Amino acid sequence: MGSSSKNIEQAQDSYLEWMSLQSQRIPELKQLLAQRRSHGDEDNDNKLRKLTGKIIGDFKNYAAKRADLAHRCSSNYYAPTWNSPLENALIWMGGCRPSSFFRLVYALCGSQTEIRVTQFLRNIDGYESSGGGGGASLSDLSAEQLAKINVLHVKIIDEEEKMTKKVSSLQEDAADIPIATVAYEMENVGEPNVVVDQALDKQEEAMARLLVEADNLRVDTLAKILGILSPVQGADFLLAGKKLHLSMHEWGTMRDRRRRDCMVDTEVIFDACTTVNSGPRPTETTNNERN
Amino acid sequence: MGSSSKNIEQAQDSYLEWMSLQSQRIPELKQLLAQRRSHGDEDNDNKLRKLTGKIIGDFKNYAAKRADLAHRCSSNYYAPTWNSPLENALIWMGGCRPSSFFRLVYALCGSQTEIRVTQFLRNIDGYESSGGGGGASLSDLSAEQLAKINVLHVKIIDEEEKMTKKVSSLQEDAADIPIATVAYEMENVGEPNVVVDQALDKQEEAMARLLVEADNLRVDTLAKILGILSPVQGADFLLAGKKLHLSMHEWGTMRDRRRRDCMVDTEVIFDACTTVNSGPRPTETTNNERN
Repeated sequence: MGSSSKNIEQAQDSYLEWMSLQSQRIPELKQLLAQRRSHGDEDNDNKLRKLTGKIIGDFKNYAAKRADLAHRCSSNYYAPTWNSPLENALIWMGGCRPSSFFRLVYALCGSQTEIRVTQFLRNIDGYESSGGGGGASLSDLSAEQLAKINVLHVKIIDEEEKMTKKVSSLQEDAADIPIATVAYEMENVGEPNVVVDQALDKQEEAMARLLVEADNLRVDTLAKILGILSPVQGADFLLAGKKLHLSMHEWGTMRDRRRRDCMVDTEVIFDACTTVNSGPRPTETTNNERN
Repeated sequence: MGSSSKNIEQAQDSYLEWMSLQSQRIPELKQLLAQRRSHGDEDNDNKLRKLTGKIIGDFKNYAAKRADLAHRCSSNYYAPTWNSPLENALIWMGGCRPSSFFRLVYALCGSQTEIRVTQFLRNIDGYESSGGGGGASLSDLSAEQLAKINVLHVKIIDEEEKMTKKVSSLQEDAADIPIATVAYEMENVGEPNVVVDQALDKQEEAMARLLVEADNLRVDTLAKILGILSPVQGADFLLAGKKLHLSMHEWGTMRDRRRRDCMVDTEVIFDACTTVNSGPRPTETTNNERN
């Protein structure tokens, strides 16, 4: 059997396992963050360090599985069928942009600072976050931490641009020798062709290498950000990242289903009307045929 | 009914119409190119100009339809379900990269020059292309034409990079206020949320605007390249472009089907074995359950 067939099915299975693992980590993070808030001691910090380290390990394991499976079916990872159209429109090299991690840090820092200022103005003792969040830790980012994050952010954008250039040249390769010239010389469009198949295999292998490079950049960026943040801030950041990823999948799926459900309603209503009028479905029929 | 439901179905229909229109243009181009090769006169050049002008009109009409439909379902265009995984891995802003047009010109120029040199060395009178191609017109590109094409190529790459930056910032927006902070504050992951829905609507509208901008860049680039090429070269170039696009769709679909057929074979063979052995399908069963 072609090993690639196993790969596509396994790719989807490992994605589903990954999403459920991320769901499991959320209550673990929330519980340790709550514990740390009530007992701000070194022991709880160590527990947080251990959990965030385990979570980086999760990312590394998942990246390794993707690397193994992408070898023969890499194109399936670039706009995966298990994603919603919205997620696939926002995807970069098979996943999220590493630079979006920094937008998340700044967003959390900004919004948590805003919450603290509001609390301060209302002179409410202590801080109780309004919902599922871990606390206001990212509003405590020091100037030194922010400077380090900013330097790293600039570096990662640079790495992203280099990779985007590599993928754009891959995209252009499809319009070059031999693929374009074989297509041009062929009598019948799109006939199977060994030269093209080999060239496309080479392209998919290059895409697989780029996917691995992008995954490594994602994991490496996460680990470096955690290295700048305190244990509490790191856990808060990972909690926000996981909730965002899982929520975007839900929201994207919901929006797509809403659009497609409207299509079903249209069909159902249409059929109901035509059955009642027992007339033919007036798509092709001309007016005089109906009168 | 939600106007967006109509849009997705129409988007697919207009894509299918577009692909069949492109197939119709291929024999038209081949016939006029053959006619021009046998009668190299101004009249045939005018006919070619008229046809290539009509084809640019086709592109403009299709871009206008996409612009109209993308308004409420733009994300569906960024990795469309009617594409194969391979096409969606090579896609840029809902279509091909304008810069790939130049790779096609250089590829045709290079390969046709190679064919002519080989013919010359074999001292074969005249030139007969080995298959479905239009002739060797692109091997006649003058130094002046090549210089103009090169200047345009650099300009278009610059435009592409500007647009790639715009889409990357859109991709990062999903990790910012309000989407990321709402997700973070939510008790239950991915609950429907009006603020998020409005933010995602705004994102999809921005994606629609970018799609229109990218389509305009594609059509504009094509028209400018045709402005540099002679009527014969232009027709040859469009013929090669259409054959490549239609072939890539066929090849991508074939590769995907081949991978998925392997999956079906695996299931069929597996079921056949287990029915013969009349034992349960040993996926979840442990060894001792089976013995």
